Amino acid sequence: MSTGSAADHHRQNPPAGRPTIFGTASTMGDDEQLTTTRLFADAARSFASQEIVYRNQDGQWHTTTYAETWRRIRRVAAGLREYGVEPGTRVGLLMWNDIRHFESYFAVPALGATMVQLNLRLSPKDIAYVVEQSQVTHIIVDESLAQLAGEVEKHLSGSVSRWFIATDHPLSAAQSRLHNVHSYDSVSTHNPPLEELPNVDERSASGACFTTGTTGRPKGVFYSHRSTWLHADAIATNLCMRLDDTVMLLTPMFHVQCWGLPFAAVKTGARIVLPGRFTMQDTPMLVDAMAEYEVTVAPAAPAILNPVLHRFRQMEQAPDLSRARFVCGASEPPISLMRGIYELTGAEVIHAYGATETSPIATVNRILPTLAASMDEEQRWDLRRSQGLAVIGVDVKIADPLGEPLPFDGKSVGEICLRGPWITKSYFENPEANESAFDEEGYWRSGDAGTVDADGYLKVTDRLKDVIKSGGEWISSIDMENTLAGHGDVADVAVVGVPHPKWGERPLVLVVPVEGAQVTTELVHQVLRKDFADWQLPERVEIVEEIARTSVGKINKRSLREIYAEAYGGSE
Amino acid sequence: MSTGSAADHHRQNPPAGRPTIFGTASTMGDDEQLTTTRLFADAARSFASQEIVYRNQDGQWHTTTYAETWRRIRRVAAGLREYGVEPGTRVGLLMWNDIRHFESYFAVPALGATMVQLNLRLSPKDIAYVVEQSQVTHIIVDESLAQLAGEVEKHLSGSVSRWFIATDHPLSAAQSRLHNVHSYDSVSTHNPPLEELPNVDERSASGACFTTGTTGRPKGVFYSHRSTWLHADAIATNLCMRLDDTVMLLTPMFHVQCWGLPFAAVKTGARIVLPGRFTMQDTPMLVDAMAEYEVTVAPAAPAILNPVLHRFRQMEQAPDLSRARFVCGASEPPISLMRGIYELTGAEVIHAYGATETSPIATVNRILPTLAASMDEEQRWDLRRSQGLAVIGVDVKIADPLGEPLPFDGKSVGEICLRGPWITKSYFENPEANESAFDEEGYWRSGDAGTVDADGYLKVTDRLKDVIKSGGEWISSIDMENTLAGHGDVADVAVVGVPHPKWGERPLVLVVPVEGAQVTTELVHQVLRKDFADWQLPERVEIVEEIARTSVGKINKRSLREIYAEAYGGSE
Repeated sequence: MSTGSAADHHRQNPPAGRPTIFGTASTMGDDEQLTTTRLFADAARSFASQEIVYRNQDGQWHTTTYAETWRRIRRVAAGLREYGVEPGTRVGLLMWNDIRHFESYFAVPALGATMVQLNLRLSPKDIAYVVEQSQVTHIIVDESLAQLAGEVEKHLSGSVSRWFIATDHPLSAAQSRLHNVHSYDSVSTHNPPLEELPNVDERSASGACFTTGTTGRPKGVFYSHRSTWLHADAIATNLCMRLDDTVMLLTPMFHVQCWGLPFAAVKTGARIVLPGRFTMQDTPMLVDAMAEYEVTVAPAAPAILNPVLHRFRQMEQAPDLSRARFVCGASEPPISLMRGIYELTGAEVIHAYGATETSPIATVNRILPTLAASMDEEQRWDLRRSQGLAVIGVDVKIADPLGEPLPFDGKSVGEICLRGPWITKSYFENPEANESAFDEEGYWRSGDAGTVDADGYLKVTDRLKDVIKSGGEWISSIDMENTLAGHGDVADVAVVGVPHPKWGERPLVLVVPVEGAQVTTELVHQVLRKDFADWQLPERVEIVEEIARTSVGKINKRSLREIYAEAYGGSE
Repeated sequence: MSTGSAADHHRQNPPAGRPTIFGTASTMGDDEQLTTTRLFADAARSFASQEIVYRNQDGQWHTTTYAETWRRIRRVAAGLREYGVEPGTRVGLLMWNDIRHFESYFAVPALGATMVQLNLRLSPKDIAYVVEQSQVTHIIVDESLAQLAGEVEKHLSGSVSRWFIATDHPLSAAQSRLHNVHSYDSVSTHNPPLEELPNVDERSASGACFTTGTTGRPKGVFYSHRSTWLHADAIATNLCMRLDDTVMLLTPMFHVQCWGLPFAAVKTGARIVLPGRFTMQDTPMLVDAMAEYEVTVAPAAPAILNPVLHRFRQMEQAPDLSRARFVCGASEPPISLMRGIYELTGAEVIHAYGATETSPIATVNRILPTLAASMDEEQRWDLRRSQGLAVIGVDVKIADPLGEPLPFDGKSVGEICLRGPWITKSYFENPEANESAFDEEGYWRSGDAGTVDADGYLKVTDRLKDVIKSGGEWISSIDMENTLAGHGDVADVAVVGVPHPKWGERPLVLVVPVEGAQVTTELVHQVLRKDFADWQLPERVEIVEEIARTSVGKINKRSLREIYAEAYGGSE
């Protein structure tokens, strides 16, 4: 047994799922509730003059303060209460990353209600399903999404009693056919700030997100005030967030609660930058704002960082972002992406791992000082690709098919199972999904396959359903994608396993070449040979114009497998 | 109403003391317990190879790892369980800052028991009082404190059933007349590491400290696992602690749980340095270790930092500690001290405020970026003297004599009252003290007078009982001490109010001059005149060899007031 190894950890952690025992009562304020309301109230006191910068619907930038935003939050709460929002009410939010969305993050839970994030990239029918499944009765919607909201309403059976349009303009100008419509701004300026807020139990749901893009209908995850608070602490600690940080909310605020960064930013008193509505075409605007406001922290994903890097490359002089950390989720960031950003701007891309079910931060990639000393630069870059170290508070189990823990040896591959104060224990009112997604010890089964090594680093080897099973052996589609992504002629790449009559499955490679480049099967084999055995090399390479992705930027492998189902002749 | 001001905050915070209301149930792992056991178990997994450096009883330095220490902790737990420690047991610790004390910090609570810190600077009679009042049945004692333990035992009525001597030598060599004695090391090597630890309720007490130095008998504060976890998060966030920090435990681990830094260090995976037994005479050893291990964080107090600064000045080349933050509690650090350390080593002295009752961190001095821009260097140094910004999670009320909140305007002086998840709600089994120390809203009354300004900065103006009431006006003894402490001829200084037949009280100044310097009443008046009115100047200045201090380094004003009670002729 080595003296400094996580190897036998799976036998060390106390069984948190067992009944609790009580020792001596403490004298502490253990009944003081950890709520997002307390979070903002305290921040508005201790960081009163700290700034929140936001871009309105016409593209203009404005600045407000924590103290002023706290007054706005309590005015919004007063208005919502007047229209029937009370403890237990679920309020849908169909919004971009703007100041009103940010206010709603705190105003809705302050009343003991739950904000339900509506993913504007889902179909109107799926959004309507989320609304009805979570019993949403009030919805706040951006003016620019009023048309979509109208489509959603057609699928609803009248369960939504109030719509609030968030607009910089008079309500009459909003092109909306919705019923029972109010202006968010007039509702929120109608009342003075609420003075008396309820003392909400920390185990009440403050927010909710629905999973997307896998099998079946979206599944609801309801975050508690407590889990949100603890998760914010975990992020602040793991990203070393500071009072002099500037946090730009760069991923959608409707998706996995924006990596929890709105809460972590408030907790640390950081300056917050809200870019409003934007699409990939607005990348130059985002990059300019990063430079202008000296952004130091942002939630991200490879699908967002790729165009950002592209933009840096176009600039005569990329901005100095040497204090910046991009927390990168969704899928493994290629070394070429991390290195490209670092070399041009000094910014660090930090790979983190999680899901809607995990709030999302379960692991964060940081290099242990005890390891760094013995590694060269290439090894350090390679280590950065791993999902990193499990955050304190999160239990990790690498489970064999029977649910038994496998050793943390960097070799034993099993399903990654997670448990902890900000990991879900069930899906909202969904007994069918709950049956298979949680094990007997209360772990959430991620559906990802991976290893943990003796130093504690988690490595996702594949989605269990994305792994390519060829002749009884496994081929990692992710490893193959990453190897190819590093080649200069490759703009985008996907590897999927498709049915093969002899081998069960075989890898198929889809490549988007960079403009003017030629990518042949031969070249692909040549690039892959340094990391892969001959039998693993794909028989077919398809040149495509675009790779299909889900609403959060993950490669849509389900769809690709369907499209290319017959590429190798189909199943036996 | 300004847009960025904390001024109306006292009306903003939700009334946490009121009954809670419940909204929608979350789906999260809200029943996952926040325990110090989970904290170390997870750290031993994620930071397995990170180091813990310790100095043993013979002065030799050794290095171990988080993973190895976790195995040791579970062996100690196994041994203690064998000798009757179970959920609800209270285990006394009479120990220096060594590795065994550190192990005990986690081993005792892992069993659902409570570690009761015994302040080795109290009299044997007072220690015995603490032991009996908290119903301690097992005590772990450093070999070097075995004599003291023997004195303590004489005052006990047989309530302690087991003593464990922590020694590097055979038990037979320990000069001890204690009964039922075991060797800590043989107890802890007798068993394999405990595999199955109980799932302890987070509201159970993990540790306890007793208040010292004020009126009456010591009063017990019992910290919960939950409060310890949340407090660790608060420290880590407010000090921006990182995986590459090195934390030296420089204040006694028996006192206010060492500022919470043992827990915050483990939570962030920092390297930990335990200097073992030391006194002021060992300052050169401490300073050498700071340089050797590149210490970046340490809990401190002016009484510790003064000799450290003195040592830096003696050195040909003071060490580069430019990444270091000394978290300084107990009393306001003079600018001369903060500046002296900064100029010689680059280290930052961060003033923080709290007490045994507050875990202790309630406020931390950080300069808001929005303020820093408009301040010059002198203003920034001056701001650093304040107690700083209340930590998120802590409610502050500046109370008038009726307990009503005063505005946060930087002028209204009232009693500082605190409430929050890591602030005590009562003293342990002490109805008499509880009667007066807590108000109707559940705030702990600190006994300190102070203001909060519109930016949120707390400033302690005085201990309510240390303030000098002269002719119906107040004179701040702390301000007067700080002004005098900055003068080059003054090595140490105290200002107390003593009875005066005409004015009620008048200030009396005690000065320890630096070697060879002459300090006259005239000089004192000259120094004070820049900050004080003529009527406030002290009539008497006493030159003394030493200033009486309490066991934690605070000036013992109670004792000084007694000694000099007749200096101005006594009460009318």
